[in-house]
Amino acid sequence: MTVRPGRRGTNLDRVGGFNDAVVLDAIRRSEQLSRVELAEATGLSGQAISNIARRLLDAGLVREAGRLRGAGIGKPRTLLELEPAGQYAVGVHLDPAVVTVVLLDLTGEAVARRRMLIEDADKPDVLIDAIAATIEDVLLESGAPRDRVTGVGIAAPGPIDVERGVVVDPPNLAAWHLVPLRDELRERTGLPTVLDKDVTAAASAEKWAGQGGSFVFFYLGTGVGAGLVIADEVVRGASSNVGEIGHVIVDPDGPVCYCGRRGCVGETSQPRYLVQQAVHAGVIAQGIDIDDRQAVDVAFAGLCAQAAAGPGLAREIVAALAERIAKVVEDIANLLDLDRVVFGGPHWEQLAPTFVDVVRKALDGRFLVRAVHPFEVAGTSLGADVGAIGAASLVLDQTFSPNPSVLMQSSALVGER
Amino acid sequence: MTVRPGRRGTNLDRVGGFNDAVVLDAIRRSEQLSRVELAEATGLSGQAISNIARRLLDAGLVREAGRLRGAGIGKPRTLLELEPAGQYAVGVHLDPAVVTVVLLDLTGEAVARRRMLIEDADKPDVLIDAIAATIEDVLLESGAPRDRVTGVGIAAPGPIDVERGVVVDPPNLAAWHLVPLRDELRERTGLPTVLDKDVTAAASAEKWAGQGGSFVFFYLGTGVGAGLVIADEVVRGASSNVGEIGHVIVDPDGPVCYCGRRGCVGETSQPRYLVQQAVHAGVIAQGIDIDDRQAVDVAFAGLCAQAAAGPGLAREIVAALAERIAKVVEDIANLLDLDRVVFGGPHWEQLAPTFVDVVRKALDGRFLVRAVHPFEVAGTSLGADVGAIGAASLVLDQTFSPNPSVLMQSSALVGER
Repeated sequence: MTVRPGRRGTNLDRVGGFNDAVVLDAIRRSEQLSRVELAEATGLSGQAISNIARRLLDAGLVREAGRLRGAGIGKPRTLLELEPAGQYAVGVHLDPAVVTVVLLDLTGEAVARRRMLIEDADKPDVLIDAIAATIEDVLLESGAPRDRVTGVGIAAPGPIDVERGVVVDPPNLAAWHLVPLRDELRERTGLPTVLDKDVTAAASAEKWAGQGGSFVFFYLGTGVGAGLVIADEVVRGASSNVGEIGHVIVDPDGPVCYCGRRGCVGETSQPRYLVQQAVHAGVIAQGIDIDDRQAVDVAFAGLCAQAAAGPGLAREIVAALAERIAKVVEDIANLLDLDRVVFGGPHWEQLAPTFVDVVRKALDGRFLVRAVHPFEVAGTSLGADVGAIGAASLVLDQTFSPNPSVLMQSSALVGER
Repeated sequence: MTVRPGRRGTNLDRVGGFNDAVVLDAIRRSEQLSRVELAEATGLSGQAISNIARRLLDAGLVREAGRLRGAGIGKPRTLLELEPAGQYAVGVHLDPAVVTVVLLDLTGEAVARRRMLIEDADKPDVLIDAIAATIEDVLLESGAPRDRVTGVGIAAPGPIDVERGVVVDPPNLAAWHLVPLRDELRERTGLPTVLDKDVTAAASAEKWAGQGGSFVFFYLGTGVGAGLVIADEVVRGASSNVGEIGHVIVDPDGPVCYCGRRGCVGETSQPRYLVQQAVHAGVIAQGIDIDDRQAVDVAFAGLCAQAAAGPGLAREIVAALAERIAKVVEDIANLLDLDRVVFGGPHWEQLAPTFVDVVRKALDGRFLVRAVHPFEVAGTSLGADVGAIGAASLVLDQTFSPNPSVLMQSSALVGER
């Protein structure tokens, strides 16, 4: 007879916090709500709503926003809305080429942002110093009082060790091996920190921005990756390393991937590969140095622009990429019974004009449960900051979202304020 | 200003039920526990545990099971265990070829089972009558008092409409179009019913039998399919139709699938296809009628047995199938960051001797986050009844498992007792 670990019980303190979060989230979703509407929306009693509203007002997290004159009798209803300055969260997105830092207020608005090109990723310590300094700059610029800053969310390329807050061994950051990024940033900033995978942070951002249901966030950049939200909850898998889709084979006769096989979707999505195809097809003049990243990026932008302009060889090359990606999206959508794909990442803006139609057409006949519900193709509304916004949303999410899992476990935020 | 739907709040009644379930689940996991151990395992207070234990004893769901003499001072501790006869759940697995009905007691043991070969699936009404009659037979045989039968779980091939309890349009049951199986069975049996997808039921069964963490249940039968458990929770997707993996392309030069493309994993896993390969390779004598399902099944069994016996052409054919399946498992494991694949379904027993090593070897070097945690290859421990056991476990799960989502929503079981 052994005591095997199971779920933990819950208690009234946690339920109180849970219900506060339910109310806060209901206000966030509808922007303004009266107490009566809150009771309707949450299923909580009028008395419970009154107590919770009082607590949230006292804590400076919500504010009164005028009165609503209804058609019925009785006194006009006071509307409640979020107090934007009630809390702030810092988001840091570590990309192999650039670090983005944003500060979100309680409503999820970015009130400050900075970008920092990475010149020397080979010295993690130096880079972490620079990130910490950038965070201080952003806080200073925003004027946000430090005691209202809930924490720092960090979005990093996988694989990560989320328990230890460690960046394990990302393919495009050669010198980063077991770097304890979360604790290093906590020590430098004195703020609670949380680390998650870049694509998961992006999926969290989309959810926070209003994407509901079940969807895949499909990242198109130097690599490809997937963030997952199923039934309104961000999916993290066994070790927060979901979304490694780069080695799905989409073209067995395609280019050799570093993994040793041919035609991995990650490899065939590289600007380098597409530019080579374009040179081969005579769309781009020969002589480009395929190892010169900047030259390749410029040529790639030209190829995408030409594809967007109309039919022709350039469009065929980009459309073929869209078809390959569509097959991966199809397989993920059928596996997970999703409502939607949301595309994003640094290449998305250039690819979108060609991609949307091709992917939608490819999926229309291929999504297997379309008899039960449709499948949508969308692009991010958060632009290039989606990773950093997502990182900050991890902090907002943990503090304010009524995720049922919050009832069972303590917060993943490490460090006390 | 609109009231947008969000999470519902929770209340003390639900919390009480939740904590009862936490305690019940803790006892189930450890078989026998004292009240002191329960307090440790659940994080609930000694007083709360005493109250809950009293309620569960009164309800006949647990029983006392002797005393534990500890090393310390104080009186010996009374052990609590589940009362097997406390509740029963019926499980029905509708497969295109056979219906399996089981009755599980509260501990998850099958106390009765029946199989029914489907002779005429073209008349859903007649078949549903036969299923209802089989349920009555099983209840009679078991001697379970009807008022202790919590409900009937039904596992059906997708796509399903889980809201309406409807079997939509399964590929291998041509006459089944929008059949309201859940409500038809509820009317005939007078018991609450719940409908879910076959592979999801199987995944639920594996979870109930002790598979924890994050895993894919990989079904190998007439078709292939995937059930998913992530972080100890069964994943259902947007409409409970997860697991449609049959059209992942694993061999672009392979046979034409009914979907119009070549080399879908479902098509290349068909006994028909493997038997054709074996005839072509000279492993099986020519002249077999490929449309005679029974003849193909016999030849397929022979092929698998020959493969299991040792190296040779038969083994190469079955190992190539294992390689194709391994690629699909690899892609799913990397996408979802899984701990494990659990194989099952009608073909598993025959394929296992060849499969386990091939799949393990293929995955060992390919699972991308193996630096963070390993990936295991396992076979079901529940045999051919896994679908029916899973269907019944949906009932046990909904009634007794402390899924946090239970706090937010009413049960999916339809019908009052």
